[in-house]
Amino acid sequence: MQKAAPIDTLIHARWIVPIVPRNAVLDHHTIALYEGKILDILPTDLAKKKYQAKHTFNRPSHVVMPGLINAHAHTPTTLLRGIADDLPLMEWLNKHVFPAEAKLLSPKNVYTASTLAIAEMIRSGTTYFNDHYFYSNDTAHAVLDSGIRATIGFWVGDAPTGWAKDGDQCLVRAQEEYDTRYQDERITYAMAPHSPYLCEDNHLLATLEFSKKYNLPIHIHLHETKDEINLGLKKFEKRPIMRLNALGILDHLIAAHMVHMTPDEIQLCKEKNISVIHCPQSNLKLADGFAPINAFLNAGVTVALGTDGTASNNDLDMFSELRTASLLAKAVTEDPTACDAMTTLEMATINGAKAIGLDHKIGSLEIGKSADIITIDFDHLNTQPIYHPISHLVYAVNAMQVTDVFVAGKQLLNQGELTTINKEKIIHEMAAIIA
Amino acid sequence: MQKAAPIDTLIHARWIVPIVPRNAVLDHHTIALYEGKILDILPTDLAKKKYQAKHTFNRPSHVVMPGLINAHAHTPTTLLRGIADDLPLMEWLNKHVFPAEAKLLSPKNVYTASTLAIAEMIRSGTTYFNDHYFYSNDTAHAVLDSGIRATIGFWVGDAPTGWAKDGDQCLVRAQEEYDTRYQDERITYAMAPHSPYLCEDNHLLATLEFSKKYNLPIHIHLHETKDEINLGLKKFEKRPIMRLNALGILDHLIAAHMVHMTPDEIQLCKEKNISVIHCPQSNLKLADGFAPINAFLNAGVTVALGTDGTASNNDLDMFSELRTASLLAKAVTEDPTACDAMTTLEMATINGAKAIGLDHKIGSLEIGKSADIITIDFDHLNTQPIYHPISHLVYAVNAMQVTDVFVAGKQLLNQGELTTINKEKIIHEMAAIIA
Repeated sequence: MQKAAPIDTLIHARWIVPIVPRNAVLDHHTIALYEGKILDILPTDLAKKKYQAKHTFNRPSHVVMPGLINAHAHTPTTLLRGIADDLPLMEWLNKHVFPAEAKLLSPKNVYTASTLAIAEMIRSGTTYFNDHYFYSNDTAHAVLDSGIRATIGFWVGDAPTGWAKDGDQCLVRAQEEYDTRYQDERITYAMAPHSPYLCEDNHLLATLEFSKKYNLPIHIHLHETKDEINLGLKKFEKRPIMRLNALGILDHLIAAHMVHMTPDEIQLCKEKNISVIHCPQSNLKLADGFAPINAFLNAGVTVALGTDGTASNNDLDMFSELRTASLLAKAVTEDPTACDAMTTLEMATINGAKAIGLDHKIGSLEIGKSADIITIDFDHLNTQPIYHPISHLVYAVNAMQVTDVFVAGKQLLNQGELTTINKEKIIHEMAAIIA
Repeated sequence: MQKAAPIDTLIHARWIVPIVPRNAVLDHHTIALYEGKILDILPTDLAKKKYQAKHTFNRPSHVVMPGLINAHAHTPTTLLRGIADDLPLMEWLNKHVFPAEAKLLSPKNVYTASTLAIAEMIRSGTTYFNDHYFYSNDTAHAVLDSGIRATIGFWVGDAPTGWAKDGDQCLVRAQEEYDTRYQDERITYAMAPHSPYLCEDNHLLATLEFSKKYNLPIHIHLHETKDEINLGLKKFEKRPIMRLNALGILDHLIAAHMVHMTPDEIQLCKEKNISVIHCPQSNLKLADGFAPINAFLNAGVTVALGTDGTASNNDLDMFSELRTASLLAKAVTEDPTACDAMTTLEMATINGAKAIGLDHKIGSLEIGKSADIITIDFDHLNTQPIYHPISHLVYAVNAMQVTDVFVAGKQLLNQGELTTINKEKIIHEMAAIIA
């Protein structure tokens, strides 16, 4: 008899949903992890013979799947969660958001607020987020300490903030942050110009140059509101996406929102290999409109999913977000077959990985990829009976059914308990900040 | 010193949100229960002096509020949860729903499936549901055993089912069920004609007569889809609501969905004192359209909230439903101030009570009302920090933060554990039914 191979971790699951291939549901399978990567996926009875693991997890009523990818977030805005809802945009910004940011934003508070957001994301099954805010390396520090994976954006905008007084200073700060960046495989960086309406041409071009110099993706808000488009037309005589095209910065862009689009512009997104980050709950809450997700998908554009910040969501629950995405697409297209469960699961996993250029590493359970994995217990009232696990993942699962989370093979959530963040301490610290 | 009065229960809360009056958030208050009713609501320090309770609950990081009211449900359809999603309506009905109902529906299975649904509702903070399905008294039996509160509808329709072969037989069965009804203050009954398109005039009139004879409300699906309206126009030369008006059965109607409405029809709803039950997630999933909730509210129509059945939702989570209702209203009206958090909370509580004619008894925390109460723990990552508890109830709370549920003063959920239903047993029984 051949001796069992020594490895790190075995997770015996009731079902594995690897995302790639589509619609696969593997019954009574096991995922084997070694040195932070996926070594094997095989029937449990075979796994028990083939491998000898340091750590074994029996998850007999659980789905194992790749960790969810939150492709557009502003994690430090947990500082503003619920501070002001149900208000007109300008009143919300000028009377509540800006004053609160002026009062609350500091490197230390950003670290704390990002840690709270990361804790919430881990607890609800998210293993990666694509962030867009100020004090980049303070959020990166929270990523490093918590064990999650993230891309940290360097904010560029022409509005004065506590971070920088204008676009020029933003680029100086981007250089400072890049020069002192964390060297960790879990942290990558991006350029994060806020939007066409907050960035003059020279700062957009400087952002492009910076991104080329260091091979960083560009992550921007685009075509979020009708006002943005009207302002763009008025000031630049171009719709914002056409202005970005004229400046040469459309290729491979990571564009959040993309609510108001013409058919030609959707085609242009495909040609330029733009990735669209759909943030349905934020778009609803801010009354932005309904993004034409089905049209993007039909055109072959990569669509991923994001929560946006907690000032406009107000949670970081990707399971809730993907349910909203599926339901909303059906109503918008008047077609109950639009955005089926598998399509939306792809948006929240492999498509997010493609959008940010990390699909060689994360987004699906495939041999050789990083062990960024979550387990979800279906032994709950709301997920019974069970006909099709993939349906329940989108239409019935509550995020609190997530029991375990691994990033690069390290366990960050163990039977619902955070292993790297002290929940009581972070809640206490956040309460103290706003007191 | 005056002696403390002996009562049943004291719940010391961090906050009480009584719903009536609007926007009230009572800090460090206590609710006192006696013989199934609310005896007092007062500051905790006073409560400790004034009352001596048999049972005392300290809920130091919790909101106490009235139980959620699910004003449109088909509880036995947990039998069909996730059996077929993402399909065109006719394929869904004919290839999946009808065959599964034919195979699975029986009095015993309805009792089991309703018990599972009730367990899920209690777990997520719902204390009352307005049901619409077959085998009425089998669901009523589940209500009786579980301790929840409900209105049970007698189904009337001209399509053959396992329950009855046509409308005539439905009315015979309604009489049988009414004659053998449960005499319990927690259970009330209603007439539940399916819809104008499934009911001939004679059966609608017989339903009306039945409802008048026994003083039962009428609960119907109305203007859910465009097809329904087109069919009505073709067959009766009237839009369905106008046909019901001509038959004299519009007064005080409980009308679920009401997606496709003219301004005149909305005005008619106000004149006839119709209550609208909004089911946003079901409307989205079935691609029905966007109900004009703000127009109803502006016209002074009572709008309540329902989950619909688990075949089209697929959970019974009213917290998720009220979040969707608020977010969707903003996008539909292009106004971020539409359906603010308090308005939606009213839909899920006091408005539901008004719609079903039980607002003298439930829907708000007021002295003399039934002790139908829930507690929600805010000491979770997704509800931190806390600026405004009412905002979090709508935009951030996860249903699994519900810790305790009381109906008529009896505790049905204790720190997240069901007290009247065996969770493992009911999950096992449901799995066996579909095996």
